[in-house]
Amino acid sequence: MSDLFSYNKITEKILAELKEALGANNVSTDEEKIETYSHDEVPESAYDKKYIAEAVVFPESTEAVSAVMKIAHRNRISVTPRGAGTGLSSGALPAYGGIVMSFEKMNKILELDEENLTITTEPGVVTAEISRMASAHGLLYAGDPCSGDASFIGGNIAENAGGNKVIKYGATGAQVLALEVVLPDGSVTWFGGKRRKDVTGFDFVHLMAGSEGILGIITKAVLKLMPNPRFSVDLLAAFPDVKSAIDFVPRIVIECGVIPASIEFIDRKALAVVAKYLNTEVPAGDAGAALVIQLEGNDEAILEEEYEKAGILSQKHGAYEVYVADTRTTKDRVWQTRKTVPEAIAALYSRYTKEDLVVPTSLVPELVKILNEKTAEDGLDCITYGHAGDGNMHCTILAPDTPDWHERLHKAQMRIYNELIKMGGTLSGEHGIGFKRKDFMKYFLDEAQIELIKRVKLAFDPQNILNPGKLVDWGE
Amino acid sequence: MSDLFSYNKITEKILAELKEALGANNVSTDEEKIETYSHDEVPESAYDKKYIAEAVVFPESTEAVSAVMKIAHRNRISVTPRGAGTGLSSGALPAYGGIVMSFEKMNKILELDEENLTITTEPGVVTAEISRMASAHGLLYAGDPCSGDASFIGGNIAENAGGNKVIKYGATGAQVLALEVVLPDGSVTWFGGKRRKDVTGFDFVHLMAGSEGILGIITKAVLKLMPNPRFSVDLLAAFPDVKSAIDFVPRIVIECGVIPASIEFIDRKALAVVAKYLNTEVPAGDAGAALVIQLEGNDEAILEEEYEKAGILSQKHGAYEVYVADTRTTKDRVWQTRKTVPEAIAALYSRYTKEDLVVPTSLVPELVKILNEKTAEDGLDCITYGHAGDGNMHCTILAPDTPDWHERLHKAQMRIYNELIKMGGTLSGEHGIGFKRKDFMKYFLDEAQIELIKRVKLAFDPQNILNPGKLVDWGE
Repeated sequence: MSDLFSYNKITEKILAELKEALGANNVSTDEEKIETYSHDEVPESAYDKKYIAEAVVFPESTEAVSAVMKIAHRNRISVTPRGAGTGLSSGALPAYGGIVMSFEKMNKILELDEENLTITTEPGVVTAEISRMASAHGLLYAGDPCSGDASFIGGNIAENAGGNKVIKYGATGAQVLALEVVLPDGSVTWFGGKRRKDVTGFDFVHLMAGSEGILGIITKAVLKLMPNPRFSVDLLAAFPDVKSAIDFVPRIVIECGVIPASIEFIDRKALAVVAKYLNTEVPAGDAGAALVIQLEGNDEAILEEEYEKAGILSQKHGAYEVYVADTRTTKDRVWQTRKTVPEAIAALYSRYTKEDLVVPTSLVPELVKILNEKTAEDGLDCITYGHAGDGNMHCTILAPDTPDWHERLHKAQMRIYNELIKMGGTLSGEHGIGFKRKDFMKYFLDEAQIELIKRVKLAFDPQNILNPGKLVDWGE
Repeated sequence: MSDLFSYNKITEKILAELKEALGANNVSTDEEKIETYSHDEVPESAYDKKYIAEAVVFPESTEAVSAVMKIAHRNRISVTPRGAGTGLSSGALPAYGGIVMSFEKMNKILELDEENLTITTEPGVVTAEISRMASAHGLLYAGDPCSGDASFIGGNIAENAGGNKVIKYGATGAQVLALEVVLPDGSVTWFGGKRRKDVTGFDFVHLMAGSEGILGIITKAVLKLMPNPRFSVDLLAAFPDVKSAIDFVPRIVIECGVIPASIEFIDRKALAVVAKYLNTEVPAGDAGAALVIQLEGNDEAILEEEYEKAGILSQKHGAYEVYVADTRTTKDRVWQTRKTVPEAIAALYSRYTKEDLVVPTSLVPELVKILNEKTAEDGLDCITYGHAGDGNMHCTILAPDTPDWHERLHKAQMRIYNELIKMGGTLSGEHGIGFKRKDFMKYFLDEAQIELIKRVKLAFDPQNILNPGKLVDWGE
C-alpha cells in the first residue's frame, strides 16, 4: 500500500502554478490560516499529532477546481476538500498535508426552479440559506442537519448529513437529483440531471452522497424541493426518566399512524449542560429526559387532532408535562434546547468522544440502557441525545481526568460497539467515518466490503490523491 | 478489451459440479427451458441473432447462489441473473451464453417487522405479494411498477424500477434499506442494515439499485414500509387533445400544493390499442388524451376537498369530463386502462421500440410534442403513455412494414434523442440500459463517466463474469 501514499511536497513552482490558475489571493500559505483550515470540529485532543496542510486554496469556479486537480494530479499532491469545517469525523483533516480546498467562495445559489421544484447551488452555500430561499417561495428543502446554520451544502452531501427530519424525508442524499463533479484527474462531469427518475448508468449521485470527499469534488448540486407543509407544531414532552421517554418513541408512528417530521431525544445531563452553557432555565429542564416531536400538515384542524392524540399518548406513557409550541418564539425556544447540546458540550469539555451510533428504531430503548450501563461500569460519564425517531443516538462519552484517558475512552467505545453489533446497529448514522472512525470499520464491515470500498475509491482515483487515508484502515 | 470477454464453455464436469451444489433438479440444460429463460420482454425482433444460455440454474438459498458463483469464478463462466423475465432492456439476456440464474425458487417473504416498519424478502417474491402483505398490516410498500403483478422484487431493485408512485415516494431504490449480496467471486456480504440511516462506508445499497445485475447478486432485501394512507381517490380526466392534457400536468403540484401519488398519461392511440385488445369500451375512450391522477390522505373530507380542487383545475385546463373512482371496482377499471397499454402493444405488434425517455417535469409537454412531430416526419406511428408526473414517457415507435424497418426505427430514435439531450432529458427513466440501449449510452454520458462505469464494474467483478456486455459499449 505504501506507494499509494507517497506524495510530493508543494514546491515554489507548484505554488506558482496554483496562483496562476486561481489568482494569487486565492492561494494561501499563511501559517495561521493553514492551521485554521486543517481541522474540523473533532476536538484536537483526539489525535496524538497535528495534521497540517501545506497550502489552502479558494477556488471560485468549477474550472478553478478542475485546474487545481490537474496540477495536483500531475504533481502527485494530496487534496482535501473542505466545507464549513463543521464536520464531526475529521473528514476534512489533511492527513497527508498537501492542499486543503475550501469552498467558501463558491457560495451562490444559482437557480430556484418553481416549475420543476428544484434548487441548484454551488457547494459553499450555507444550508440554512437554501431552506430560507425555498421557504420564501412556499417550498421546502427537506435536508435539515443540526449544523444547518453554519454547514455548507457541499459538505452535507459529501457526508450524507442527517439531522432532524430524516424519519420523514430521508437524509441529505435523498434530496439530491444531480451533481456536477470534478474527478481526481480534473475532468468535469455531471451525475444525474434535473430529473425525478434516471437509470441511465450507475447511480453515482447517491454513491457520491456520503462518500466523504474521497471519490470526487462536488461543484454544483441540483436539490429537490417540495410544497411546504402549511402548518407545523412542536411538542416538548417531559418524562420522569430515560426509560419512559425512550420507550414512547416507537409508539408514536405505530399508534398514531403518522410519521412526525422529527422525534428528538435529550437526556437529563444534556438538558443540564445546555442550561449551564446558556446560563438560563431551559424548558423541561427538570425532566429525567425529554422528547421534541414535530408534526406537520396542510390542515390546521387535522394537525391539532394529531398533536392532541400524540400528547395524550405521551402522557399515557409517562410524560408529566407536554409543552405545545406553535409560534416562532415558542418553537425557537424548544429547538434551541435541542440544537445547543453539541455546542454546549464543546464549550464545556475538551476531552470526549461524540458517538453517532445507529440501531433499528425499535432498539433505541435498549441502546440507551446499554450506553448508560456500560459507561457507568467503566466509571465514565455520558451525555445522550439525538435523533430517536430514526435510531441515531449521539452518546458523548466524557473523558476521565486521568493520564490514561485515551485508552479508557477507547475501551468504553469497544464495549459499546460490541453490544451495538449484536443489536444490528452500526458505527455512524450521519457524521461519517472520516479519519476519526476508520480504524473501527473492521468491526462493522466484513473484509469483502472493505476491499470493495478500496477498489471503488481507486476506480475513481487511481493515484489516490483525493482526501487519502480516510474511511477504512489502508494499512499505510 | 477482448480478454475480458473470453469465457469457457460449460463442460460436463462443470455441470456435474453445479448439480452437486444445487441438486440435479435445480440445473437444467433442456433446450426448450433454456430458450424460455434466455430473453425478457424486449421483442425478439430487436436483435439480428439469438443469445442463448448453456444452462439454467434455480438456486434455493444464498449458499447455493454463492456456490454457483464460486464455480463460475473458478471456471470463468458468465452468469446472468434473471428475475421474472419482465424486463424491458434485455438486462437478463445471456449475451455470452453461460449460466442463467433464475430466482423463482427463492420466493419467500422472510419477515414483516411492525416495530421497525420493514419487510425482508428473498429476491424471487412477486412485488404485488409484498404490497398485499404490507397492506394486510395497514402498511404501505411504496414501490409500484406497472409490472408488479408479475415482476420479482429482486429485478425491481436491480433495475431501480419506477412505476406509478415515483412522484410521491421515489423509485424502488428509495424503498431499500439493506441488501444481502453475493459478489462475483462468491463471497456473501450485507450492504446497509435494518436502519433508517447509515453512513458507515459507501452507499453500496443505492449503487446496487439500478446496477442491472452486473455488480453483485441480490439474495435478500430489507424494504421500508410506512403507514398506509387511509383513503385514496383516482381521477380520470378526459381531455380533447394531447396538448391540453399534458399542459395540465405541472399545474397540479404547483397550483394545488399537493403531491399526488400518481399522474399518468395515456394518448388517444394508447386508449384505442387497449380498447381493441380488451375488445371493450374503455373509460375516456373517446378522449384525445387522458390523465389518471391518484390522491391519498388520512382524512376523507380533506381528500374530497383536494380532489374537487384538482377536478375543477383540470376542467379549467380543458378537461371535458372527470371520472372519480373511489371504490375498488371503479379504481380497477381506471387503472386497467393505464396498466394494459404495454400488454396490448406487445400483443398487437411485433416490431417496435418502446422508449423510456425522461425529461425535467416541466418539459413533458414539449417532449410529447416533439415525439409526435419527429415520428410523423419520419412517416412512423407512435403510441405515447407514461408517468407524466415524474417526466418519464414511454413512447412506443411502431416499425414500418418495410425491409429497412430496423434502420428507420434507429433513425427516428436518434432524431428524438438529439432533441431529448437539448432538453436535459435522458435515455432511461426506469427500464434500464441492459443490452438494448448500451450503444446509445455514448450520446448521453461523457467519456469520463463511461470509463468510471467500466472501472466500478471491474472493481466489483475483476473477471467480468457477472452479466457481461451490458450497460455501456465495451468495444468487444
